[in-house]
Amino acid sequence: MRILFLGTSAAQPTASRGLSCTCIERNGEIIMFDAGECAQTAYTRAGLGWNKRMRIFITHLHGDHCIGILGLLQTMSMQRRTEPLEIFGPAGIEEFVTANIRMLGFAPTFPITIGTVSPGAVIGYGGDGRGGGRRRSDYEILACRASHTITAFSYVLRERNRPGRFSEENAAKLGIPRGRLWGRLQEGREVVVDGKTFRPEQVLGEERPGKVIGISGDTMPSAELEEFFVGCDYLIFDATFLDGEQQRAAETRHSTASQAALLAKSAGAKNLILTHFSARYRDDAGHLAEARRIHPCVTAAADRMEIQVA
Amino acid sequence: MRILFLGTSAAQPTASRGLSCTCIERNGEIIMFDAGECAQTAYTRAGLGWNKRMRIFITHLHGDHCIGILGLLQTMSMQRRTEPLEIFGPAGIEEFVTANIRMLGFAPTFPITIGTVSPGAVIGYGGDGRGGGRRRSDYEILACRASHTITAFSYVLRERNRPGRFSEENAAKLGIPRGRLWGRLQEGREVVVDGKTFRPEQVLGEERPGKVIGISGDTMPSAELEEFFVGCDYLIFDATFLDGEQQRAAETRHSTASQAALLAKSAGAKNLILTHFSARYRDDAGHLAEARRIHPCVTAAADRMEIQVA
Repeated sequence: MRILFLGTSAAQPTASRGLSCTCIERNGEIIMFDAGECAQTAYTRAGLGWNKRMRIFITHLHGDHCIGILGLLQTMSMQRRTEPLEIFGPAGIEEFVTANIRMLGFAPTFPITIGTVSPGAVIGYGGDGRGGGRRRSDYEILACRASHTITAFSYVLRERNRPGRFSEENAAKLGIPRGRLWGRLQEGREVVVDGKTFRPEQVLGEERPGKVIGISGDTMPSAELEEFFVGCDYLIFDATFLDGEQQRAAETRHSTASQAALLAKSAGAKNLILTHFSARYRDDAGHLAEARRIHPCVTAAADRMEIQVA
Repeated sequence: MRILFLGTSAAQPTASRGLSCTCIERNGEIIMFDAGECAQTAYTRAGLGWNKRMRIFITHLHGDHCIGILGLLQTMSMQRRTEPLEIFGPAGIEEFVTANIRMLGFAPTFPITIGTVSPGAVIGYGGDGRGGGRRRSDYEILACRASHTITAFSYVLRERNRPGRFSEENAAKLGIPRGRLWGRLQEGREVVVDGKTFRPEQVLGEERPGKVIGISGDTMPSAELEEFFVGCDYLIFDATFLDGEQQRAAETRHSTASQAALLAKSAGAKNLILTHFSARYRDDAGHLAEARRIHPCVTAAADRMEIQVA
């Protein structure tokens, strides 16, 4: 799994940063969070491919987070995409997409499903999520109400824990014949050999935890988000401002780098990635300095940056 | 007056070309033709300023020619623009702009007027244009039906001819006293000195012709456009394809470089500027070669290119 930063600027693009767009590539699938204007340009440059399995999650319906959907849909159609596309976002997302498809008069070459997000599971592991779940998934996407000027959501991608490593040695010792039965045990099911029942834990090591990635979108810090992001391996958080603009951050319902770091620390997030930088700052040095006073592991996102998640 | 090319790619952006957007800067006013996605990025880079007098003319409502309006409006508002903005385009332009302002929930900080274009004068010299003309203008904008897959317009910007140079020598010889009366003659009005009437042509040289700039937008060549573009000093024309793709050009209702050159030649356009290059071509060498076989003065537009119009 890798995280690709396609746009890391707040509100308006700068010479080096495009508008909000973050992709997770995972088992050949693209999971995109926000699609600000020019997302298609950054997406093309990243060479991610136009016919991949793909889901887009919009945090909120401000233009700098969602206008890019339109160009993506148009270019996907030009590229003759056939793979279905799922788009999720706050109430209004369906109107925004369908009204623009109508007004701009283009015909998508692929099926589009649009889901309205509410807090909780948007994509569930086993088809039990409220918004999606039409196929069994090995990750879930959870939504939590963010604290912004309009309805906005933060998201968590949580991989399903993987079963422990299979011990061929133990299986052989127990007299379970190699083949189909080993596969069943690996899948977590019991097997019976000569009338004797074997449980998966007799041959499997400890369960390997899936990775957890949090994406704040535009938000002030809140107790709800602190809880929501508990245990994130990577937390990508709004760091629009520096401490000197704390007042402005509160007025516009964004966060400072320090606030992002405090929340990440309280939530026990292992890695904090700052993003959504105001165009007023020339570089990210101030953000890094202020956040690193609080959290031990901070990175500043940059356009075209990639993080390989082990 | 100068022409700035902010986006010269067809349908989808490439590494070096953004989507359609051409600006004319003239006496402190920006006259923009089309605003494809990322227009605001190119506009920012060009340093044209957010509070200038400005009119935007959209050729047609395909996303790659108009999506950029939304980000422009949002960023203008962030920049606290106060100057009114006029937007013109085919029927549907008003719904596209107003529906998106509503759906994206932002409040423009400046008045926006949206006019639906029909063939003829969109902006008249003297307030007599059908679509605009609320203030006296020293240029006019004319629209002509283009030949594309949806309703599309080509535009011509025609500067008002400037009066000839004032001859102080002749005025003195005729005994017209320096001052207010000279000014009136320069403005083209008669004056009376000691009961004797003097006409402007007695002191003014030959009228100096204004410049004429044509913008085709997306179109096939047509007899109507050939007539419309007669006498252009600069004709900026759809050159999506090379001769080898003439069939494809006809199907998608675009032009080849040769077709652009033939039309420009027939219309007596002094300079032809090719634009709207399909992403399939690596460079513009083929377009230039094919067009230069037909027209003596051809340039290939490139993003960030500027042309100073004397």
